Amino acid sequence: MRGSAIDLIALDADDTLWHNERSYRAARERFGRLLAVAGVARSADDIDAHINETELMNLPYFGYGVSSFALSLIESAIALTEGRIAATDLMNIVELAKEMMSEPVELFAGVREVVDELAASYPLMLITKGDLLHQTAKLDRSGLRSCFRFVEVVSQKTPAVYAEILSRHGTEPSRFLMAGNSLRSDVVPVLQLGGWAVHVPAHLTWSHEHADVPEALTGRYRPVAAIGELSTVIRQLLPTH
Amino acid sequence: MRGSAIDLIALDADDTLWHNERSYRAARERFGRLLAVAGVARSADDIDAHINETELMNLPYFGYGVSSFALSLIESAIALTEGRIAATDLMNIVELAKEMMSEPVELFAGVREVVDELAASYPLMLITKGDLLHQTAKLDRSGLRSCFRFVEVVSQKTPAVYAEILSRHGTEPSRFLMAGNSLRSDVVPVLQLGGWAVHVPAHLTWSHEHADVPEALTGRYRPVAAIGELSTVIRQLLPTH
Repeated sequence: MRGSAIDLIALDADDTLWHNERSYRAARERFGRLLAVAGVARSADDIDAHINETELMNLPYFGYGVSSFALSLIESAIALTEGRIAATDLMNIVELAKEMMSEPVELFAGVREVVDELAASYPLMLITKGDLLHQTAKLDRSGLRSCFRFVEVVSQKTPAVYAEILSRHGTEPSRFLMAGNSLRSDVVPVLQLGGWAVHVPAHLTWSHEHADVPEALTGRYRPVAAIGELSTVIRQLLPTH
Repeated sequence: MRGSAIDLIALDADDTLWHNERSYRAARERFGRLLAVAGVARSADDIDAHINETELMNLPYFGYGVSSFALSLIESAIALTEGRIAATDLMNIVELAKEMMSEPVELFAGVREVVDELAASYPLMLITKGDLLHQTAKLDRSGLRSCFRFVEVVSQKTPAVYAEILSRHGTEPSRFLMAGNSLRSDVVPVLQLGGWAVHVPAHLTWSHEHADVPEALTGRYRPVAAIGELSTVIRQLLPTH
């Protein structure tokens, strides 16, 4: 794009381009039914809170992704039943993880068009957290692989991680824009680094991904109502010179 | 290195630079004792064969790494006990995985010296299969992070994967050398691509990683007895011009 102030646009994947959290919510529901059958008389909120706590404790060991989630569900099931859950019920959790790993990738409405449009004007990068194999498999299945010049699967999305990626690609933060559904992972660290960020809200977002955008950093930040608006907002947001 | 025919040297990590398989063997032994206590009257070889089969079936879902291994152990334990294993025994497997994820990284003898020496003459790349978080955490803990200009954590090591990495870095396969302990992952695919490869045997290597080097490809291939010989062999192997 002639005169653009941006050299590189990066997009998040899960819950930005395609459904993801929906699959975790469905898994949590199945998990709840499994526990109910095993005689656990706890509310869904209570069980969810226990899973969240276990996941966060396990992040330093197992990172993000379905395998990590499955191990946390197994651990939660054992804790919540005080060891009384049957091994065959735990096998259902392993099978659930395999289903999550192999389920089809469903793009949000408008993604195909907006990614095509952006790819025509900018080099695009996918920056996604999670399991390497699963993330690259989902990109392949999404049909969007050819739109992305670069793919970065990372363990976490901190300012330091973004800085390392940008340095490797020789891109100044001030000439970089990131769009994604997580304020915590896609927006705030990029703004802190001096980059541009667009928040694309997802219908469902993991509770862990919420954050506030500091007032001082809103100059390079815009929210959109839906991903279809992304290219329009990017045109409006960026100074051309 | 003046006159060198090589632009980039890549090294494998697990069982090439540091102990890894040893930790999996120890886990398998603990798993065997767990099953024995649970009343499984099978030989160690029999149990190992079952784990291997389960791991290979699960590779397309969970990939390589400790989380995948843990899920395969849980699945094997449930199958081998026909669902009779106690949930608390399965929790031991989850705990075992956390221990594996956080255990110290122990370099093989001579690694520090040879990596320092190579890094002084060539840009070094680490190319390793497995869990992204765990692999980068191990590199940080190894003290070798600063020796590697590039780090690639991949889901598999096929000729196509190597080709993609080299293309991204603008390196011709004929000017690339890979060294590692796996004939299947580190040597054969690189030779097939037209690159150079050095096999560094490990005391312990996962059975899945064995392969034969095709006769026609041995011109750019050398085995060494130990990693300490790597820089000497690279000097002898490469034509200078």
